[in-house]
Amino acid sequence: MVLGLGMASCWGISMYYHDPASAQYGLAIPGILTLTIALILSVATRTKSPIDLSRRDGFGIVTFGWLFAALFGAAPFVWSGIIPNPIGAVFETMSGFTTTGASVMWGLDQAPKGLLLWRALTHFFGGMGVLVLCVAILPFLGVGGMQIFRAEMPGPSKDRLTPRIANTAKLLWGIYVALCLVEIVLLKIGGMSGFDAVCHSFATVATGGFSTRDASLGFYNSVYIEVVVTVFMFLAGINFSLHYRALRGNLQAFWKDSEFLVYLIIWALACTVMTLNLWHHTAPTLPSAIRAAFFTGTSVMTTTGFATADFDLWPAFSKLVLIVLMFVGGCAGSTSGGLKIIRIHILLKIALREIRLFLQPQAIVQVKVGKKPVEAGIVSGIAGFFVIYLLTFVAASALMCLFMPDLISAFTSVAATLGNIGPGLASVGPMLNYSQIPDAGLIVLTLCMLLGRLELYTALVILLPHFWKK
Amino acid sequence: MVLGLGMASCWGISMYYHDPASAQYGLAIPGILTLTIALILSVATRTKSPIDLSRRDGFGIVTFGWLFAALFGAAPFVWSGIIPNPIGAVFETMSGFTTTGASVMWGLDQAPKGLLLWRALTHFFGGMGVLVLCVAILPFLGVGGMQIFRAEMPGPSKDRLTPRIANTAKLLWGIYVALCLVEIVLLKIGGMSGFDAVCHSFATVATGGFSTRDASLGFYNSVYIEVVVTVFMFLAGINFSLHYRALRGNLQAFWKDSEFLVYLIIWALACTVMTLNLWHHTAPTLPSAIRAAFFTGTSVMTTTGFATADFDLWPAFSKLVLIVLMFVGGCAGSTSGGLKIIRIHILLKIALREIRLFLQPQAIVQVKVGKKPVEAGIVSGIAGFFVIYLLTFVAASALMCLFMPDLISAFTSVAATLGNIGPGLASVGPMLNYSQIPDAGLIVLTLCMLLGRLELYTALVILLPHFWKK
Repeated sequence: MVLGLGMASCWGISMYYHDPASAQYGLAIPGILTLTIALILSVATRTKSPIDLSRRDGFGIVTFGWLFAALFGAAPFVWSGIIPNPIGAVFETMSGFTTTGASVMWGLDQAPKGLLLWRALTHFFGGMGVLVLCVAILPFLGVGGMQIFRAEMPGPSKDRLTPRIANTAKLLWGIYVALCLVEIVLLKIGGMSGFDAVCHSFATVATGGFSTRDASLGFYNSVYIEVVVTVFMFLAGINFSLHYRALRGNLQAFWKDSEFLVYLIIWALACTVMTLNLWHHTAPTLPSAIRAAFFTGTSVMTTTGFATADFDLWPAFSKLVLIVLMFVGGCAGSTSGGLKIIRIHILLKIALREIRLFLQPQAIVQVKVGKKPVEAGIVSGIAGFFVIYLLTFVAASALMCLFMPDLISAFTSVAATLGNIGPGLASVGPMLNYSQIPDAGLIVLTLCMLLGRLELYTALVILLPHFWKK
Repeated sequence: MVLGLGMASCWGISMYYHDPASAQYGLAIPGILTLTIALILSVATRTKSPIDLSRRDGFGIVTFGWLFAALFGAAPFVWSGIIPNPIGAVFETMSGFTTTGASVMWGLDQAPKGLLLWRALTHFFGGMGVLVLCVAILPFLGVGGMQIFRAEMPGPSKDRLTPRIANTAKLLWGIYVALCLVEIVLLKIGGMSGFDAVCHSFATVATGGFSTRDASLGFYNSVYIEVVVTVFMFLAGINFSLHYRALRGNLQAFWKDSEFLVYLIIWALACTVMTLNLWHHTAPTLPSAIRAAFFTGTSVMTTTGFATADFDLWPAFSKLVLIVLMFVGGCAGSTSGGLKIIRIHILLKIALREIRLFLQPQAIVQVKVGKKPVEAGIVSGIAGFFVIYLLTFVAASALMCLFMPDLISAFTSVAATLGNIGPGLASVGPMLNYSQIPDAGLIVLTLCMLLGRLELYTALVILLPHFWKK
């Protein structure tokens, strides 16, 4: 129903901007159809008492929710003729809802406004879904160590889970919308058109990366805009529970959160070494190196994927740092993707523990985050998640090798979709896009985006016969 | 003392083949010096009662043993003027002793025979060292999960460790020498000169990869020779304890060993998919695809590194399979490098356990190898080892990006040295070598070879202040 209303609003915008008739029909008809189906389903499945969700319901709702959103959401692109290939359209929409930002569209600057807004709205809705998924659902499904956040859900604590999830979602969405609004105002002040400011804000706070310009944010060539977007990308990469606590007056929450501190350290370190590398090689001045490295570093680490520079032309060292950041990602409980800082943190602790045990074989060394020891089950869950993530990466890369001209294109197309970043390197670099990839390759990458967004297990579990039994 | 005697023997061979005087002096003088220093040290440190080794002694002996072997062993290359750059010579010698096979030498076909034999002997001695290290020392030092082999050491079980290590070493060395001799005879029958047969057998059974020809084994273009070498590379990639048990009549040992079965499955699968990929793209006929894929697949997986084809020109899919094999490596307790099959096996089990736990959150799932459950400490040791291996890979790749023209060269130069393979891809591909890399890069890669060979911890621990205290 939300999607149908979204399409209908975009139809309104489309009429306001006098888009071509194909675009207006392309939004109107799928919008009306989506709304009709939603109303029928809603009436048909109405119950009086609230329903308690089982784990299995959770998996199903989450995975099929994203899948159907991408299928329905793709209709306007196909219907309007903007992306005539349905597989390309589903890729684009999945990229939107998973807040990836990988695109098969060219000619954005001239594209109908209604469809550009719909594209940005897929990010906006996707980001809302991710928040409720990461903070309210995954910890209770026990996905890859995310149980660690079970106690940290903001909002009034209740006994029954369903109302608590609804409450948490509303709180986080409030923060999310507020961040969007503030960024819209700041971008407007910087001289961006209202329409572009809305679309780019949606893409920033959802850490998506769709732009309304073929040259992405490089189009504006404005330091002010880049600083604003960098700040909001950075904020969107932080656990939204921390924003909630900060808004309730507990500003110390940031400095007491070890995941945030690790995020800050990796971010500052990566951007600084890239600055030095760029200054030494390609950038004419230190300020221009700082500007390029911090914007791109933040964009890739938070898995947003906006571009102001063709980082595919950067020296190998900076490219390697960007690839590492693609795997690292932002904080858990944010809209970002990748492995997430909390997992990286615990993986590093696992390595450290082994070195300490090696020196003192008789010692009892616990993995701790902050000062709290982490349950052994969570630690091994994260190690298992890491292995499965790498296996998925290797398997999908092997498939992409069949469709891509070279290894770097194959590797980074998978890293950039599995981590929900958007642009990769070489033939999927920031100045190119995914339009030259054959359909079979687009299907692989569409699944990578879904798998990455749903933290692998949630989507993988649907494939197991066990899920369908009982 | 063994090195000194080795150099002296090569001096003899050098005189027999009438090598240039520079080569003869280059072997004679370092040989005499090494022997003299060895004799002085041996007399100065003589004790009456046998010494029991502590863990710390173990680390020291192993790490400094390899380091000093590379330093002393490099002298003939520098003295003879064959590799005038001492850093290049140490790289070459470390590559020999760690059974890597990465080279900075060109013009092998015309090189003095004495030095080619010395180069092959570094592999032979290195392989002997690896065997005693992997089967007799590492399990007792508790390195990265290798404790799993503690009970499996062949030979008469005694209470005291030192004589038991000596016994095990002698048994394994017997098998090692026997494999070498059989291969020499088989290669000689195939038409190889006696000298080349000896050098290539040393390089095969040690899974080293140094050839006496610039074109590596491609020089001979003989199916018979390639089959013989493939079989011996495959044998050298198996845990030598299994060979020992097989020789004692227990041929079932292979089929009962789950590590061997996983090795066989990964090998067969990787070679088969590469065959299909090559047949589809570049190879003119199926037999030529089988020949190229199985030889190269075995060479890379066992971390030998012989080449018969320029696999840098292969399609991306086959190159990806080769990169994966570089990380996988052969069985623990063999002369091969990489992560080792046993660790890959347990990492896969960790991933499987998480998926099972995800479906049945209340279940108690143990990681098992064969039918025996693996201690939790060993499982987490292997997870920690994996993280440290990847961290080392990323850190060294970042450094190599400063010295290499592109990412693939940087990545594969590190993968190929850390995994003790030899050739990588792009600018360190099988038809090129490491001679164009600046000194600083060679130092990084020399350390990678040492770290990889000593399973990281053993060498890393020397860097910690804790090691030097007490």
